[in-house]
Amino acid sequence: MQRSKTKIAVVGATGYTGLLLSQLLLRHPFVEIQTLVSESYSGKKFSEIYPAFSSLLDLRCSELSLSNLSKSELVFFATPNGLAYKFAGDLIKAGIRVIDLSADYRFRDLAVYTKAYGFKRSDRALNNRSIYALPEFRKAEIAKSRGVISNPGCYTTASILALTPLLRAHKTFGIDLDSVIIDAKSGLSGAGRKAVTEQLYAEVAENISPYKLAGQHRHVPELEAFWSEDLQRELPITFSPHLVPMTRGLLVTCYLRSSRKLQLQKLRALYQEVYKGEPFVQLLEAGVYPQSKWVVNTNRALIQIDYDERRGQIIVTAVIDNLIKGAAGQALQNMNIILGYPETTALELSPYLP
Amino acid sequence: MQRSKTKIAVVGATGYTGLLLSQLLLRHPFVEIQTLVSESYSGKKFSEIYPAFSSLLDLRCSELSLSNLSKSELVFFATPNGLAYKFAGDLIKAGIRVIDLSADYRFRDLAVYTKAYGFKRSDRALNNRSIYALPEFRKAEIAKSRGVISNPGCYTTASILALTPLLRAHKTFGIDLDSVIIDAKSGLSGAGRKAVTEQLYAEVAENISPYKLAGQHRHVPELEAFWSEDLQRELPITFSPHLVPMTRGLLVTCYLRSSRKLQLQKLRALYQEVYKGEPFVQLLEAGVYPQSKWVVNTNRALIQIDYDERRGQIIVTAVIDNLIKGAAGQALQNMNIILGYPETTALELSPYLP
Amino acid sequence: MQRSKTKIAVVGATGYTGLLLSQLLLRHPFVEIQTLVSESYSGKKFSEIYPAFSSLLDLRCSELSLSNLSKSELVFFATPNGLAYKFAGDLIKAGIRVIDLSADYRFRDLAVYTKAYGFKRSDRALNNRSIYALPEFRKAEIAKSRGVISNPGCYTTASILALTPLLRAHKTFGIDLDSVIIDAKSGLSGAGRKAVTEQLYAEVAENISPYKLAGQHRHVPELEAFWSEDLQRELPITFSPHLVPMTRGLLVTCYLRSSRKLQLQKLRALYQEVYKGEPFVQLLEAGVYPQSKWVVNTNRALIQIDYDERRGQIIVTAVIDNLIKGAAGQALQNMNIILGYPETTALELSPYLP
Amino acid sequence: MQRSKTKIAVVGATGYTGLLLSQLLLRHPFVEIQTLVSESYSGKKFSEIYPAFSSLLDLRCSELSLSNLSKSELVFFATPNGLAYKFAGDLIKAGIRVIDLSADYRFRDLAVYTKAYGFKRSDRALNNRSIYALPEFRKAEIAKSRGVISNPGCYTTASILALTPLLRAHKTFGIDLDSVIIDAKSGLSGAGRKAVTEQLYAEVAENISPYKLAGQHRHVPELEAFWSEDLQRELPITFSPHLVPMTRGLLVTCYLRSSRKLQLQKLRALYQEVYKGEPFVQLLEAGVYPQSKWVVNTNRALIQIDYDERRGQIIVTAVIDNLIKGAAGQALQNMNIILGYPETTALELSPYLP
Repeated sequence: MQRSKTKIAVVGATGYTGLLLSQLLLRHPFVEIQTLVSESYSGKKFSEIYPAFSSLLDLRCSELSLSNLSKSELVFFATPNGLAYKFAGDLIKAGIRVIDLSADYRFRDLAVYTKAYGFKRSDRALNNRSIYALPEFRKAEIAKSRGVISNPGCYTTASILALTPLLRAHKTFGIDLDSVIIDAKSGLSGAGRKAVTEQLYAEVAENISPYKLAGQHRHVPELEAFWSEDLQRELPITFSPHLVPMTRGLLVTCYLRSSRKLQLQKLRALYQEVYKGEPFVQLLEAGVYPQSKWVVNTNRALIQIDYDERRGQIIVTAVIDNLIKGAAGQALQNMNIILGYPETTALELSPYLP
Repeated sequence: MQRSKTKIAVVGATGYTGLLLSQLLLRHPFVEIQTLVSESYSGKKFSEIYPAFSSLLDLRCSELSLSNLSKSELVFFATPNGLAYKFAGDLIKAGIRVIDLSADYRFRDLAVYTKAYGFKRSDRALNNRSIYALPEFRKAEIAKSRGVISNPGCYTTASILALTPLLRAHKTFGIDLDSVIIDAKSGLSGAGRKAVTEQLYAEVAENISPYKLAGQHRHVPELEAFWSEDLQRELPITFSPHLVPMTRGLLVTCYLRSSRKLQLQKLRALYQEVYKGEPFVQLLEAGVYPQSKWVVNTNRALIQIDYDERRGQIIVTAVIDNLIKGAAGQALQNMNIILGYPETTALELSPYLP
Repeated sequence: MQRSKTKIAVVGATGYTGLLLSQLLLRHPFVEIQTLVSESYSGKKFSEIYPAFSSLLDLRCSELSLSNLSKSELVFFATPNGLAYKFAGDLIKAGIRVIDLSADYRFRDLAVYTKAYGFKRSDRALNNRSIYALPEFRKAEIAKSRGVISNPGCYTTASILALTPLLRAHKTFGIDLDSVIIDAKSGLSGAGRKAVTEQLYAEVAENISPYKLAGQHRHVPELEAFWSEDLQRELPITFSPHLVPMTRGLLVTCYLRSSRKLQLQKLRALYQEVYKGEPFVQLLEAGVYPQSKWVVNTNRALIQIDYDERRGQIIVTAVIDNLIKGAAGQALQNMNIILGYPETTALELSPYLP
Repeated sequence: MQRSKTKIAVVGATGYTGLLLSQLLLRHPFVEIQTLVSESYSGKKFSEIYPAFSSLLDLRCSELSLSNLSKSELVFFATPNGLAYKFAGDLIKAGIRVIDLSADYRFRDLAVYTKAYGFKRSDRALNNRSIYALPEFRKAEIAKSRGVISNPGCYTTASILALTPLLRAHKTFGIDLDSVIIDAKSGLSGAGRKAVTEQLYAEVAENISPYKLAGQHRHVPELEAFWSEDLQRELPITFSPHLVPMTRGLLVTCYLRSSRKLQLQKLRALYQEVYKGEPFVQLLEAGVYPQSKWVVNTNRALIQIDYDERRGQIIVTAVIDNLIKGAAGQALQNMNIILGYPETTALELSPYLP
């Protein structure tokens, strides 16, 4: 007997993350999109907003309401911060699974969340039951979680994949935990589909710009929270985001120092070991640096590790598609995990090349 | 009992068309890539040339030879013009199917081919048995063809899909057959992966340029040959190609005059009728103009038709992905047709958006 | 004795056209920017809006008011349509010269203006005294004009430069005046600096899109008005604009038919003759097609003419920088003409290459 | 009596640096381009290679020979490394000034040069008399130099301008001299106009890629040589270059640690003091990060300094146009200095915005 398809709702379906999520869900054999919520476009067909989807996804967008969402078995929130937490509790109480792509459930400590995002909340119990869902480091916990599945941010996903193996092994390699610098470069879709002057083509094409340096970016507390919990110690970092003139793709160039003389081969072996069996993370051949385009349109992360013996400097580079592994794809990966589908279902994607 | 997978060879696998073909074949459930031929990179793994395919396609490229190709059941030629015809005859004699993405078998009249491409050939018999494989207008003939399946060019595919319905119905709509102008705009990947100064980023970014106007482009004889045969009369056209600063995508803006007063709705009905049931061609809602990005990464063509009553001017716009519907995807579509697979197998692709 | 510098006001200084105008005025030896008006940013320094101009142009933007403008000797309106006409009359009465880059004074027939732009006006007298200031075809009239100097649109400038020589000589060359088709391709800055979703990088990069085909674009009546007056007969045209993923640059590919057998050399001679002595317009060497990048950052137009004997088809291509020759540069050229400065002052610019 | 114009030769005139140099020289009131040398295009007019310069620069390129160069008073070498040193000695002996934009005379220690660039040389005497011509830190020495004026590289120019003030003041601010990391992002024109696959639009558009990390880039020894000499001590650094999908522009994000608690205002005051009176270098207002586009088409460097108190991390960002301040403009600035022209002659350029 055939198992019936799981009914899915996507809130924020017409933003870029929602768009990607809808694209991916459309090709998933075991689920069906039941509800697309868009406050800006409710009443319109998805294919009116995105005519590229004419005859592919003609479902009409609906309004945001609990009753509307309650018809589905799983709800994705691809929404601005501060919205998911208003619905997540009721949905979960009603037995509906919730995967949140916003920052609402990314912090064990709600005070940190409130400081970074401004919203004051009282749903501590649900927050505690929720899980920071970076699958490569939390797969078992995600599978059995009963709270919100909180999808990590794009910069944080790339940074965590790039550095966690080494940070966990810091004693073995003599890593100076006070030396972490992440110089990050993101495509412009990361800012979402808001009509703002700063994102006009004529402003950003042929232009690279740093922003929110020196600890101002919200992914700093997110990263520090993850690693503090993971390593059971404080880990302050330097994080410098930059906007690069490309729609998608994200690269982190990460710097760590070690006081010991290391062998690159051992560093490589560490990464190979940690990511063995992970379908979406791969260390590149020695000498090949990852290019953002190589993972665009996929859920993959490609990593390279380099070592400058003269300086005791370790440099880890990693690329992801900010909208897939950094958002919608990882959310789908998490969905596959919690619903018991093969982890790669609907995520066996070829890179968009050339 | 499970049917075994069809064994495929791709000649020219590391060019852009070959790359796309390999990507698509990789996701096709009923075939398997057996041989990748690359003269420039023979001996190297595909994933060494394209590290984006590490662990996805690690097959080693081999040299071009008849014996090498003869191990497969179907051979794609994604090669420069003038190569496929040296192998096609022997392969077909050996019972191997041949799909040629070059121009070698696109002309019923070999003199036209020789004039446009320079190569002198004597394989008239095979050429006569071969088929110009634009599926939407030749599906039955393709299915039963025993010669080379000759895949149309990118500009010609878009132009034929845009204009053939009206040209065939020229009497009904009073179309002036002497009025055809096609102003075409293509992304840069159409030029292939050759190291030439004119294709450097610094030369072509932020730049639009016309080239080979006034009948100089090789797709002019190709288009005229197709329509002459299709309409059983000469049909000289004006065709103006332009290079647009984008990697993929192709738009044709086509102009036709009619001496009669027309109703746009009847023109729309014609296109809807002609393309009814075609999985890859669609007329957009009235008033929505096709954008090249809407079809990129898909095998789709989106079409719009417009009518300026004041001038008796009909304007048809159409977009395709030059490397998919304009090359590799259409070749795969043709493969599905001749091998009896569902026509959309491995071609149910979402547009690459945003 | 040194002549004192002419005092200039720019209304709409922080839009793209205003930005370019300010840049150019800054390098002009005979004028000085006295007032920059920006309604969105009044009170802020120009260099706060555009930090690229730190220490280059730190003037504070002021509010729009007649008294404010009346301190200058010449006022540029680089504003949305429907604003200049509210001030032009009073300014001119006060002896202040007015150069309008909007469409307000581009139409001899105000009914046409009102139909295209919606604004109802009564300043017929001033409108009649004003001049459609395309310098290459109206230099003498511009020099002696006492009304508003009305700067042509970007598409119209390129089209007029491309086609007027042939249209004027239509009898000599047997041109079919009913055959004019202009297929135009513009960079994105043409849409101005408005925060709209359709102009976000992620929407328009790697994308070409047609818009307002079949007579819907406002430059159609503008072109038809110019040529009707110039040729003293109606001249309906087909005009198809497209947005190309580049910030600046504009190309028109223009189609004309002739019933006679022509010699390309005579067509070339015509253009050379018409533009002899014009510092900003040049016919390219035979066989060289103009690329938009070749004129970006300059006030130049580069033109090529082609002839397909087989079809009796003439194809004229022309490129300009939409913000310079298509707007700010041409306005400055007009300023030079009316103030008696050498026409090329502050306009001897090198192309921005590579 | 009017001083006659200085006669200039540019070797390598058709590469990107040569192109820029020619553009700039063309607008310089006190010099005249006498000879353009291009080995690839000798015999052709400059405007045949770059039709954008039709009627602007129609001079014919000539072959490289000593006699050819000896007709000029000053020779620029905008050539690949390993060429200038073959001519510089003879030219200088003949009283001709030489400005070299290649790396040939950038190293006091020829062994370092040979290790980095491979060429073995014996012109130690001339090398010793030559000057590493970064004007903001060597103006007096440049003015009186009698050897080759050796123009710094693009990455090094940006890095030196960004960090030298702080490195010189390292004791005052407690800078850890072992903590220097430079994460650099360059536009693609930096690679020159060579026809290579890796620089094709379809390969690099919408793509960011790191390369030559961990001390492999040739600008590492150049930077270390400059600072070692400047500070009179060894200063090993980490330098990570990246290619960004844009033609021009270069950003460095520089990291330094201090063990002391600092005040940002004092750091700012330092930079303001160091660059006071420098026409081309400017510290931005607090809180405004430099964007590469803000300096493109100019000889300017814009700098920002940031301080993360929590981490003791100083972050200096700086942008230049890699082809102007990073090459041709700086060479012209050096020319102005050695010939006694005002330093800003022909370099008062507006940024290319939007």
